[in-house]
Amino acid sequence: MCFNRGMVAAPSVVPPFRRVALIGRYASPEIAAPLSRLAAFLAARGHAVVLEAETARFTPVPGYPTAEAEALGAASDVAIVVGGDGTMLAIARQLARFGVPLIGVNQGRLGFLTDIPLATMEQALAAMLDGAFVEERRSLLLAEVGEGSALALNDVVVNRGSSGTMIEYAVEIDDRFVYAMRADGLIVATPTGSTAYALSAGGPILAPEVPAFALVPVAPHGLTHRPIAIPETSTIRITVQRGRDAAAHCDGQTHFPLFEGTQVTIRRAAHVVRFLHPEGYDHFAMLRQKLHWSETPERLRGK
Amino acid sequence: MCFNRGMVAAPSVVPPFRRVALIGRYASPEIAAPLSRLAAFLAARGHAVVLEAETARFTPVPGYPTAEAEALGAASDVAIVVGGDGTMLAIARQLARFGVPLIGVNQGRLGFLTDIPLATMEQALAAMLDGAFVEERRSLLLAEVGEGSALALNDVVVNRGSSGTMIEYAVEIDDRFVYAMRADGLIVATPTGSTAYALSAGGPILAPEVPAFALVPVAPHGLTHRPIAIPETSTIRITVQRGRDAAAHCDGQTHFPLFEGTQVTIRRAAHVVRFLHPEGYDHFAMLRQKLHWSETPERLRGK
Amino acid sequence: MCFNRGMVAAPSVVPPFRRVALIGRYASPEIAAPLSRLAAFLAARGHAVVLEAETARFTPVPGYPTAEAEALGAASDVAIVVGGDGTMLAIARQLARFGVPLIGVNQGRLGFLTDIPLATMEQALAAMLDGAFVEERRSLLLAEVGEGSALALNDVVVNRGSSGTMIEYAVEIDDRFVYAMRADGLIVATPTGSTAYALSAGGPILAPEVPAFALVPVAPHGLTHRPIAIPETSTIRITVQRGRDAAAHCDGQTHFPLFEGTQVTIRRAAHVVRFLHPEGYDHFAMLRQKLHWSETPERLRGK
Amino acid sequence: MCFNRGMVAAPSVVPPFRRVALIGRYASPEIAAPLSRLAAFLAARGHAVVLEAETARFTPVPGYPTAEAEALGAASDVAIVVGGDGTMLAIARQLARFGVPLIGVNQGRLGFLTDIPLATMEQALAAMLDGAFVEERRSLLLAEVGEGSALALNDVVVNRGSSGTMIEYAVEIDDRFVYAMRADGLIVATPTGSTAYALSAGGPILAPEVPAFALVPVAPHGLTHRPIAIPETSTIRITVQRGRDAAAHCDGQTHFPLFEGTQVTIRRAAHVVRFLHPEGYDHFAMLRQKLHWSETPERLRGK
Repeated sequence: MCFNRGMVAAPSVVPPFRRVALIGRYASPEIAAPLSRLAAFLAARGHAVVLEAETARFTPVPGYPTAEAEALGAASDVAIVVGGDGTMLAIARQLARFGVPLIGVNQGRLGFLTDIPLATMEQALAAMLDGAFVEERRSLLLAEVGEGSALALNDVVVNRGSSGTMIEYAVEIDDRFVYAMRADGLIVATPTGSTAYALSAGGPILAPEVPAFALVPVAPHGLTHRPIAIPETSTIRITVQRGRDAAAHCDGQTHFPLFEGTQVTIRRAAHVVRFLHPEGYDHFAMLRQKLHWSETPERLRGK
Repeated sequence: MCFNRGMVAAPSVVPPFRRVALIGRYASPEIAAPLSRLAAFLAARGHAVVLEAETARFTPVPGYPTAEAEALGAASDVAIVVGGDGTMLAIARQLARFGVPLIGVNQGRLGFLTDIPLATMEQALAAMLDGAFVEERRSLLLAEVGEGSALALNDVVVNRGSSGTMIEYAVEIDDRFVYAMRADGLIVATPTGSTAYALSAGGPILAPEVPAFALVPVAPHGLTHRPIAIPETSTIRITVQRGRDAAAHCDGQTHFPLFEGTQVTIRRAAHVVRFLHPEGYDHFAMLRQKLHWSETPERLRGK
Repeated sequence: MCFNRGMVAAPSVVPPFRRVALIGRYASPEIAAPLSRLAAFLAARGHAVVLEAETARFTPVPGYPTAEAEALGAASDVAIVVGGDGTMLAIARQLARFGVPLIGVNQGRLGFLTDIPLATMEQALAAMLDGAFVEERRSLLLAEVGEGSALALNDVVVNRGSSGTMIEYAVEIDDRFVYAMRADGLIVATPTGSTAYALSAGGPILAPEVPAFALVPVAPHGLTHRPIAIPETSTIRITVQRGRDAAAHCDGQTHFPLFEGTQVTIRRAAHVVRFLHPEGYDHFAMLRQKLHWSETPERLRGK
Repeated sequence: MCFNRGMVAAPSVVPPFRRVALIGRYASPEIAAPLSRLAAFLAARGHAVVLEAETARFTPVPGYPTAEAEALGAASDVAIVVGGDGTMLAIARQLARFGVPLIGVNQGRLGFLTDIPLATMEQALAAMLDGAFVEERRSLLLAEVGEGSALALNDVVVNRGSSGTMIEYAVEIDDRFVYAMRADGLIVATPTGSTAYALSAGGPILAPEVPAFALVPVAPHGLTHRPIAIPETSTIRITVQRGRDAAAHCDGQTHFPLFEGTQVTIRRAAHVVRFLHPEGYDHFAMLRQKLHWSETPERLRGK
């Protein structure tokens, strides 16, 4: 199977974004006003608006039907998230198998995944819903632990628990032994997640177009352990060898307790996440802004 | 108050190391033979040997009196630890207030704190007990959390727990605000601890003679947060601002649960730990061996 | 154009490695004996042996024809390098456009690129020349500076010079601005080079199968600048903005002086390097050995 | 010898800052106006103003006497620098042996060493010259190379040159061998310099009160080489073992070529630099501003 990563030219025929799902930040009454404003704007444009049920519970927007997140996949042509990257992660994982494209409106400062400012959202969304957008496809991870499994858009993390003691684990890739390590944990990150927790732990930034995952150890006892980028077609198996209160975390949202001998198997998921951005979206411009890179060289310290 | 750190010349009058306490690695029956051998060796030299009670419970050495660790402080002139650095950390924290000097015999590969190989311990110990040694004094940390307190020879760590989510905390030094941060945790390390967990987290090595502690964040969200060395006379206050399953760990051996608003106060303890080393002991030689530094420059890759 | 990276199954028909080129470490008379031994071994097996002319100048091996490196490409079916990774880099760059497969014999400790020990080379080579090998294809970089250009198997480095002062440069990828930075330099590394200089500068290890290059800044003034992996189809343009004694280095072997305003353009070269390894070759096993990763988890410091 | 580091309470008797030296950024005609304004302000307050001769050459301020930097030491009671940290470094090194206190006015954004904004300098300086200031004393390094020697307030750097090839060197501290290393270079930094080049190379921040120097390797080939803090009473000897175009740099302003076998000896200088700051000066507040640390914990990415 082959799919395109990164930027995909907008289709020549404007997609019929007739049904629009709205999802708000969890338990955030303060976004009621923006959500109402957005719903009214969309309805006035002729879109059928449906509100995610959990959002509606905390932030009711009267006059629009609601649907559980699971049902939104079949019931919408595009989903607009109003919140932060955490909200986007949650809904992206739930909707991944339906292929619904996602648009992110950020209520606070811009996020890595939610790139449309609330203040000017109508202008940006009008153009995008009319077909002026770029689409980005991002890989997901599928983690399997015993009978359980979960998707992750950012990362699967095998981590120590409350005892504060490092865990020990062995890593195999495609059934070949890579290393055994003592550390706080190991992050398996997608390009999307490479600017999240993995970056704090010293991992590299992977451009979205790079078909790779990054293995980033957290505080490894062995000083020669460095982040490794491996092909996204790899199957990664992490076996906990020591560490009674270890756990696996998918995007920090789904958790699996791990025991000595437990194996976590991680591979690319069958589905991808589709993000829509305004035309002219520039991944590096976003990174510059988020990471405070300067546009022009610095003239340091008055020299 | 003023005390000497680092190497102290052996006193001209040989110390009367009459009473020798023996402590073995916890729950390690395999060290029964070396412990017996060591006890017999010491008794034959005329020392009064007393076995730490916990050691005796798991690893009985018939024919010698036992005493609880707490009582060893008053009942011995020197303590010999047979085990690894973890064993040494535990006994050093218990005996710190008694000023009993400590000698470390390592049953496996050499440790940072246990530098006498088991195989040749009799030769090394004979010379040392006759007065041919160097003494090193190491600072301890005292952590206070609410009503509780504990000592640490390596580090006091404020760390996230099992949820896998970063914690947020604010740091003050001598009542001045330093920073607020989101991270996996913060390590406050002594020079002794600077080669332990703090090193894995990217902290600097502090030579034992440097009167400083290192603040080393673990996986900080803000990429400009770097390790900081501060005077050992500082009082450090860490206030947890967010993170319901945070905890403070002293040498990974004493643990305090932390809640939002809990403060951890850390300062230099009133007592120091006294380590005795064979004459000719060289801290950097030990580091070279432990960290696999080369003696001679490398000629890399055939160039 | 599409080519395979990483492991390629050995062809079912044994390749006719009739003509074998021998290249020795530069100016190293001490390898005369091994080279003679190897040449005799190959001749006895019926191969036509040709010695690289520069090698023959310093390390004559009487009785065999010689050819300049440039001519070896057309005059040999496989090339065997006896030396270290530096020797391999040099010959790989010279022979890249001819597609001659390369085998590396290491006279000292094993290299990343020269993986056959001298002591047992006959056994390994006999099997390989009979067709029992795995082939690995590695990307090359092509750097263009003004009228000049050079290939690099490890890295193209834009670096400060003798003044010791940081340089400033701007980076574009596929004509899009990425960042402007003040630093000691910038390393553009292939997966092959990701374990060389780039690793010392804090870059990630890129598995050979990952179709990416790493941009690794050296001592960047801005603390949020981190290594970035980008698709190997990218065109990278580095413009020196300040730094009168800057230079570009290809594998540390070809050098271009740079001035303010000079542009260095870097892209994947049209040709790849073909390395042959003994059957059972395991890239991660090599990394474990070179980087002293432990096979089994460490039980640290007796805890 | 003993001297105080860090903050020193202002003396109870106001110092007679009668003679004030003015030094401007090198070759910067654009500071003529601020310099004139400052000189007039000081003269009106009754101070005797003297202009540094080099400054006067590029930026004449008619009506005031001039003196060469060397002579300013004896001819002034306090020196005010208008420029950036580079200007301050230069004058601090020249005036160190005279004990003249220094005040830094920054024409651009604030520096680590020049902490008074140009816009409000009169208000700040009036208070300070009346005795309302805090004094900070900073250690200097003295580097000796053969017959030559130079002072450094930030760092002494032994570094590779234009060839782009790593150098090899051995380090001894107080005549004891520490390590031999292959790297781009080695930075020996004071606490003052710990926020300059050493920070870019991964070194720790040393609080000004910590009596230590940091050894920070730049891109070391051996991955277990980490920054080390050693007592400021140490004598450091660096011997170049390989690297024909190496050089030693003092604050990036004085340079010594190094050859194989050349030794660089570095120790604390006999004199200190005295900086005066406005009352209420807070080193950590300055770090927060320069390094963009947040005052309040971050609520990352909408989670």
